[in-house]
Amino acid sequence: MQFELTKDFLEELKDDIARFDRNAVSSKVKELHAADIAEILDEVNLIEAQFIFKLLDDELGSDVIVELDEDVRERFLASLTDAEIAEYVDQLDTDDAADLIGELPEKRQEDVLAQVDDDEQASDIAQLLTYDEDSAGGLMATELIKVNVNWNIVTCVREMRKQAEDVNQVFTVYVVDDKDVLLGIVSLKKMLLNSTRTLIKDIYKEGILSVEATMEAEDVAKLMEKYDLVVVPVVDRQHRLLGRITVDDIMDVVREETSKDYQMMSGISENIETTDTVWIMSRARLPWLLVAMFGGIAGAMVIGNYEHELQINPQMAFFIPLVVAMGGNVGIQSSALIVQGLANDTLSKDGMIKRILKELMVGLVNGLACTAVLMVYSGVFGYPLELSLTIGASLLAVILFAAAFGTFMPLTLNRMKIDPALATGPFITTSNDIIGLFFYFMIGRLMYGPWLQEILASY
Amino acid sequence: MQFELTKDFLEELKDDIARFDRNAVSSKVKELHAADIAEILDEVNLIEAQFIFKLLDDELGSDVIVELDEDVRERFLASLTDAEIAEYVDQLDTDDAADLIGELPEKRQEDVLAQVDDDEQASDIAQLLTYDEDSAGGLMATELIKVNVNWNIVTCVREMRKQAEDVNQVFTVYVVDDKDVLLGIVSLKKMLLNSTRTLIKDIYKEGILSVEATMEAEDVAKLMEKYDLVVVPVVDRQHRLLGRITVDDIMDVVREETSKDYQMMSGISENIETTDTVWIMSRARLPWLLVAMFGGIAGAMVIGNYEHELQINPQMAFFIPLVVAMGGNVGIQSSALIVQGLANDTLSKDGMIKRILKELMVGLVNGLACTAVLMVYSGVFGYPLELSLTIGASLLAVILFAAAFGTFMPLTLNRMKIDPALATGPFITTSNDIIGLFFYFMIGRLMYGPWLQEILASY
Repeated sequence: MQFELTKDFLEELKDDIARFDRNAVSSKVKELHAADIAEILDEVNLIEAQFIFKLLDDELGSDVIVELDEDVRERFLASLTDAEIAEYVDQLDTDDAADLIGELPEKRQEDVLAQVDDDEQASDIAQLLTYDEDSAGGLMATELIKVNVNWNIVTCVREMRKQAEDVNQVFTVYVVDDKDVLLGIVSLKKMLLNSTRTLIKDIYKEGILSVEATMEAEDVAKLMEKYDLVVVPVVDRQHRLLGRITVDDIMDVVREETSKDYQMMSGISENIETTDTVWIMSRARLPWLLVAMFGGIAGAMVIGNYEHELQINPQMAFFIPLVVAMGGNVGIQSSALIVQGLANDTLSKDGMIKRILKELMVGLVNGLACTAVLMVYSGVFGYPLELSLTIGASLLAVILFAAAFGTFMPLTLNRMKIDPALATGPFITTSNDIIGLFFYFMIGRLMYGPWLQEILASY
Repeated sequence: MQFELTKDFLEELKDDIARFDRNAVSSKVKELHAADIAEILDEVNLIEAQFIFKLLDDELGSDVIVELDEDVRERFLASLTDAEIAEYVDQLDTDDAADLIGELPEKRQEDVLAQVDDDEQASDIAQLLTYDEDSAGGLMATELIKVNVNWNIVTCVREMRKQAEDVNQVFTVYVVDDKDVLLGIVSLKKMLLNSTRTLIKDIYKEGILSVEATMEAEDVAKLMEKYDLVVVPVVDRQHRLLGRITVDDIMDVVREETSKDYQMMSGISENIETTDTVWIMSRARLPWLLVAMFGGIAGAMVIGNYEHELQINPQMAFFIPLVVAMGGNVGIQSSALIVQGLANDTLSKDGMIKRILKELMVGLVNGLACTAVLMVYSGVFGYPLELSLTIGASLLAVILFAAAFGTFMPLTLNRMKIDPALATGPFITTSNDIIGLFFYFMIGRLMYGPWLQEILASY
């Protein structure tokens, strides 16, 4: 029942297509789920994809379109006429239909909508297109089952039968008043357990959670996750019922948000996958590499100020990578904790100062531990005292600075309404590197100064 | 309707508790959702938490326990008697109950189960405890509604009324044969739309997706995401219906998995939050810092081999951070792409060699771009030709190596059934650093060799 796309399957399928063997192709794909067919279409070329696609009926075809990779879908839609797209749109739930049309060039959107047969569907979609893509309104579908609070169960069931024809999955039956204001829900379970003459007003549940259409998608996701909701109703300012958001759409929001954070940390600036072209992959990655490179050049300038010292004590150069790496690692640890806390809504309620103090404590514990190990090492290998003290002191300084900076940056970005995940990317690591080099060489100049020798000599 | 926990609210609540004002506390929390109350309990101390908790009824209390942070829950359960826990367990869905009992010390598990009043609930839980926590069996709940394929709708509704008392949310009605083998589902919609004498066998849907109890949780998550499932039935080897998994439990699996990957990349070895103690936070972060430090020491040893060269050409030291940073960044980019592709199941179907070649192409494009920028820079600043060639060549070498290594490692780890995310952590970045230093100084020794001077002199 579960399908796994293999290389062999793909090869066979491509052979069938090359022989224009419609029956063979059809028998291979017709029993598959739309998501599986989309997976296949993502892997073959456009001509092959069109060949397969033309063998599907409208309903399956429309589901397949929704499941395609965005770039494949774009090429696909470009190859279809307005009327063809309109037919697929007619088959879809309003939320998927609006997403699909939203991806079309603006002037094409109206042309396609004008060709949709079902006027109600068309006007619902047009309405959905007015909402921001990343808002509750942009996520919701208008298909739902609602009953009037004054009806009894018999009337409800009769009305629900009518409405149910448009609704694929009945999750919840919403209860509204005469003005369509959302009052609550009535569970199918309650309707099963009570006599058919019972009035809805006597069995419905008040005070259910709802979201306004303008709420941000990420906030909707947090809400549904926190309260373990499978579906949440969407209302307007007057609390009139507009639609509903189901958890599978939310799962996509969560995935997208976490991959955005993940990519930011890995220094990738676009949403790319291994299936993208070399060119797209290079483009998504070059910006951060250039940031890192300019950071490296800035670092070279910092070190350049100490050329004379390096000539006398080339051993100073040995520990450059160590100091830089430790600053980078501690900074990422601190900022990643904050970014994840913000994303999951699990941040403690402390203020900024308290947070930074706590991070400094952690930095102190780990900094002392690392420094101790390093002192032992440099003792065993007989490095000069000046060098050991320089490494130890600058390691501690770098760790403490990186911990505080790594906490401060994402919190500040977040307050400024900038994506805090920026603080986990190469930009901040690079700043940490440069500051670390400053510390290291400044402390080095201090330690190699005459005072230490004088103290040692006086014993 | 939606609750936001503020500092002021917490302060007031703590004041009320300090004055033992049960009514004030009760009025503050009794209208809240279990998830909100749990959030409050996570923020106050154990004594205060117990004070609040004792004001809740069993049903709300049991929901609150489930929502608590794991460490808070552990302390909480330790303060309750076996009988008290058993009462809460009785109120919960079997999946949550099994998770709760699973967290108790082994010898206490039996004691608590023995005190659960409802024998069926107790034996269901005991059964669930036998499954691996990270398997479908470990995620499923046994509460579900099932009907026999030979019944008609009237019989079904009668039987469903009985079963529905134990089930909080009716998602799906499963259809089984006399031996409890899962045959399909019948939608409530179909039951609404057909006459009450219709037989289930005439309206049920065959061939639905199910998972075996031994399937890994992550695979269940991928399946439910791919096919947009809200609930999936769990069966045994003989395809007998055992339970069902709902999407909210899957959301937790997805969150956990992505935060695991995120933490691995940020060099944090335990699942920690900003609310944890300084000690726990330090402990979770020290291991990776030590890895980075030993990497730094190894780097120092590599550079140590070139002390003589550094004395003559201290400018070589200037670009150590640059070479190291570029290798680290490219390596993370490449491995993060693979790790995310594996997690989302969006990896292209190419083999290892083809993948590495593609990464090398990307590395070549970006490497040449970065090298070009660097050459311009070093020309403007008048660095010696030997140094410019050293930086340029080693940059390209490091980027190509890091791209190939960053692709190879996570794929290989994955084949060896080791978490591929390990390849994005400090371990691999550190290896890249060391290799980068090798390249840089080896190429440097070559470039500063006599041959280049001889060629230049001959012009």
